Amino acid sequence: MNGKFLVVEGLEGAGKTTAINKVLETLKSAGISDIAQTREPGGTPLAEQMRTLVKQGHPDEPVTDMAELLLMYAARIQLVENVIKPALSEGKWVVGDRHDMSSQAYQGGGRGFDANMMLTLRDMVLADFRPALTLYMDIDPIIGLNRARARGELDRIEQNDIEFFQRARARYLELAESDDSVIIIDASQSMEAVAHDIQNKLSEWLRHVS
Amino acid sequence: MNGKFLVVEGLEGAGKTTAINKVLETLKSAGISDIAQTREPGGTPLAEQMRTLVKQGHPDEPVTDMAELLLMYAARIQLVENVIKPALSEGKWVVGDRHDMSSQAYQGGGRGFDANMMLTLRDMVLADFRPALTLYMDIDPIIGLNRARARGELDRIEQNDIEFFQRARARYLELAESDDSVIIIDASQSMEAVAHDIQNKLSEWLRHVS
Repeated sequence: MNGKFLVVEGLEGAGKTTAINKVLETLKSAGISDIAQTREPGGTPLAEQMRTLVKQGHPDEPVTDMAELLLMYAARIQLVENVIKPALSEGKWVVGDRHDMSSQAYQGGGRGFDANMMLTLRDMVLADFRPALTLYMDIDPIIGLNRARARGELDRIEQNDIEFFQRARARYLELAESDDSVIIIDASQSMEAVAHDIQNKLSEWLRHVS
Repeated sequence: MNGKFLVVEGLEGAGKTTAINKVLETLKSAGISDIAQTREPGGTPLAEQMRTLVKQGHPDEPVTDMAELLLMYAARIQLVENVIKPALSEGKWVVGDRHDMSSQAYQGGGRGFDANMMLTLRDMVLADFRPALTLYMDIDPIIGLNRARARGELDRIEQNDIEFFQRARARYLELAESDDSVIIIDASQSMEAVAHDIQNKLSEWLRHVS
């Protein structure tokens, strides 16, 4: 039997790493132990090189929004074809730190690319490949960015202004509310409450798919 | 007054470098001296890094056709926005070694991506930006690849089989024959005859645009 692809999404400082650990723990409690982990952009040697290109500062040359968008998708298709799909067909489950919804939110909402164009590009690159479930960690970007800044230096994309992240969050919520395969987690709660929510909602979902 | 963007296209071994030199000479004879030169993929620091990613071998990881295509367009938009458009608005002419027609021929024809999808992607990335004139150096790939091999080692894309280049040539011809802004040069002629053709046809075009 094929495994399933689960994704954790959210803005900087939404607590994705903690959420991923809780997802892994919940899967293991449910008897699912053969799990691969991915992160985007990146996760293959070539995709990691693209991650570096897109996230590092380029003082000598503006990175166009379009090049950023295309690099994100180039990295994504390398990861999907070379890592995620092979793992799923071997029966592994895959837990991803970000996937396509990040491009919809950051490049679509944040950079302001037309939403229909964004979906056309997604379908062009990914065809019908979609995660089975996405946990979207919802946080006010003012809170999230404060947490992220406390952790250390921000990369080129994380250095955008607050309005960029507010547009990204609005797109995240818009997509999450119209998609049955996305569960919204209120990431402004205490860590204990967040962990409890993830465990409950994921366990309930697992009962329905098994 | 804005300058114009001229492109030289063709398969490996079609004699693009010689053709570009003849184009430069003909422009200078016509009194056009402020000329920038570009090559694709590449031509900006970031685009050159993408060129390396896409052209070098990756023994540990297959490069998907889609990632190759997206990297070509990411490099192209960096070059167009950061080099070609600024040069044109300063009144410079720009002579390009390859541009979008190469993607249509190599990734579209060669790799087999759907022709309509290829045009959708082009319009998505480039909007209505097009060269004023393209000189397509037409050559049988058997002759062209023999010439290219005699020059030295072939890169990852140049190592494709002969059928790949035959499909690329067919797409080149199809596009060239349906586009008034493309002049076809028979690159199987002697170097003298090719140079003569370029000079004549380009001079005639210059008389019409000036």
